[in-house]
Amino acid sequence: MIVLDGKKVAAEKRAKLREFLTSCKAKGVRMPKLAIVIVGHNPASETYVANKMKACAEVGIEVEKIAFEADITERQLLTEIRKLNRDKSVDGFIVQLPLPEHISEAKVLTTIDYRKDVDGLTPMSIGRSVQGLPAIPSATPSGIRTLLEYYQIPTAGKHVVVIGRSNIVGKPMALMLMQRPYLSLPSVSAAALGDATVTVCHSKTQDLAAICRTADIIIVAAGCPGLLTAEMVKPGATVIDVGINRVEDPASPRGYKLVGDVDFEHVSQVAGAISPVPGGVGPMTIASLLSNVVAVYDMNVPGYKVSE
Amino acid sequence: MIVLDGKKVAAEKRAKLREFLTSCKAKGVRMPKLAIVIVGHNPASETYVANKMKACAEVGIEVEKIAFEADITERQLLTEIRKLNRDKSVDGFIVQLPLPEHISEAKVLTTIDYRKDVDGLTPMSIGRSVQGLPAIPSATPSGIRTLLEYYQIPTAGKHVVVIGRSNIVGKPMALMLMQRPYLSLPSVSAAALGDATVTVCHSKTQDLAAICRTADIIIVAAGCPGLLTAEMVKPGATVIDVGINRVEDPASPRGYKLVGDVDFEHVSQVAGAISPVPGGVGPMTIASLLSNVVAVYDMNVPGYKVSE
Repeated sequence: MIVLDGKKVAAEKRAKLREFLTSCKAKGVRMPKLAIVIVGHNPASETYVANKMKACAEVGIEVEKIAFEADITERQLLTEIRKLNRDKSVDGFIVQLPLPEHISEAKVLTTIDYRKDVDGLTPMSIGRSVQGLPAIPSATPSGIRTLLEYYQIPTAGKHVVVIGRSNIVGKPMALMLMQRPYLSLPSVSAAALGDATVTVCHSKTQDLAAICRTADIIIVAAGCPGLLTAEMVKPGATVIDVGINRVEDPASPRGYKLVGDVDFEHVSQVAGAISPVPGGVGPMTIASLLSNVVAVYDMNVPGYKVSE
Repeated sequence: MIVLDGKKVAAEKRAKLREFLTSCKAKGVRMPKLAIVIVGHNPASETYVANKMKACAEVGIEVEKIAFEADITERQLLTEIRKLNRDKSVDGFIVQLPLPEHISEAKVLTTIDYRKDVDGLTPMSIGRSVQGLPAIPSATPSGIRTLLEYYQIPTAGKHVVVIGRSNIVGKPMALMLMQRPYLSLPSVSAAALGDATVTVCHSKTQDLAAICRTADIIIVAAGCPGLLTAEMVKPGATVIDVGINRVEDPASPRGYKLVGDVDFEHVSQVAGAISPVPGGVGPMTIASLLSNVVAVYDMNVPGYKVSE
């Protein structure tokens, strides 16, 4: 059984990006710039943003954190986003979710120019990806794809079961894997997995276990600790755990621990390969964000844009 | 065994639209207007356009056919599309595909304003649909949804196998059926199917027959005559045939006949319900186009727009 070590793969990915950017710097080229918009003071969001900033700094991406108080109006926030769309010094930007309730997430995402959408979450990025047009890939699915590539786990003709149908993971992941292999953006990914037979399951699925047992690869993104158990997994299958759940843990100084959606202890005895939580998909998502920023930068610097 | 009679359901749908538009006319409200752009003289395209125009006339939708010679430049065509985007007298428009080789279909579709995209094929329409935002649904999947609704064939929790991963049918159909039920546009559909467990199969799928045998509903859109045979169908399953293939037929005065992707003769002895070709999905697609035009019109007339 192989543990799909996202921490290691992400570190290698960051090292490659750093190397590339160091060579750019040596040539006197400007460095890429990411802007991160954060609204309010959600502690989890602040931690995520801090981690992203640290990762950017490590590879040589400049970051500007643009923080607003929770009482910013939707209108003001949309104006700020339009400014970032026009700002030529910014290669890409993200708006950290969730947003306060009075601000429509859909309106915010719809306002972000897809050419700067380095999270790959705007409707235009998704629609273009669905149709195989050049687009920035969604960060988490893209990170999972990189992990599968790294461990040379083929997807063509394989049966992939995706559990969860969110806009951020389930649906874009399913679409990415069912496509004919294509390059989302020239420099995002060297190979490109695809050609899988994909089943999307969710809370309304009947007999999830039987469907999972037919899968060569199972990707779980349901937000439900222990959802995937050993008897749902075909021996030798690959299991990717996207869940990040806090469960009480009196033994931990924080009072909780992070677990995925997979019963790791037992599933790891059946699966051929499995990604742990933490240290699996999480670091890969941040690596994909960095990779997306550098891909956009790589197109901006020579003076050309993502083609229509 | 029930034959899913698309011809009949489409006629009823048209009658309802006609009734609605007659009542609008009686109130002195302007009628909806569809523009159809056609480039060159592809005989199949000309037939499709003629059928669409006839259907529009029948329900009271004004149609303007905008025909260009095959040597129009891509730039000129895009300029014409931008004009249609701005033209307030036009509720929606479609560009008949295929286009001559020197014109990029992707560029054309990307240029169409999604709020006028009554075929529901632009990246923005697809992306918004994926995310559950208000959007005009793709015509063929929407027609299939209406057919399933009419015959009260439930999808929630059922296993739907979609064969084919095209931008026009396979992918939007899969996405529509896996979603939480939602109303694409207020007046497009009274009910809204969804919540299905969806598997997308294609030319690279291994053991298609075994996967199909687990399906409650099979939707075939592969463009391959006779692809779905009786032994691939679970007794009682619903089979929707989206294929339209010309096969030689010396007995026909035209020298060919139209067949679907399903071996109708034998599959109809196993299936619980089946859509024929012709007279199944084809008429439903045109009915969906009309329905999309009227839905956009219905929002335009009182003076509001598809909300962001």
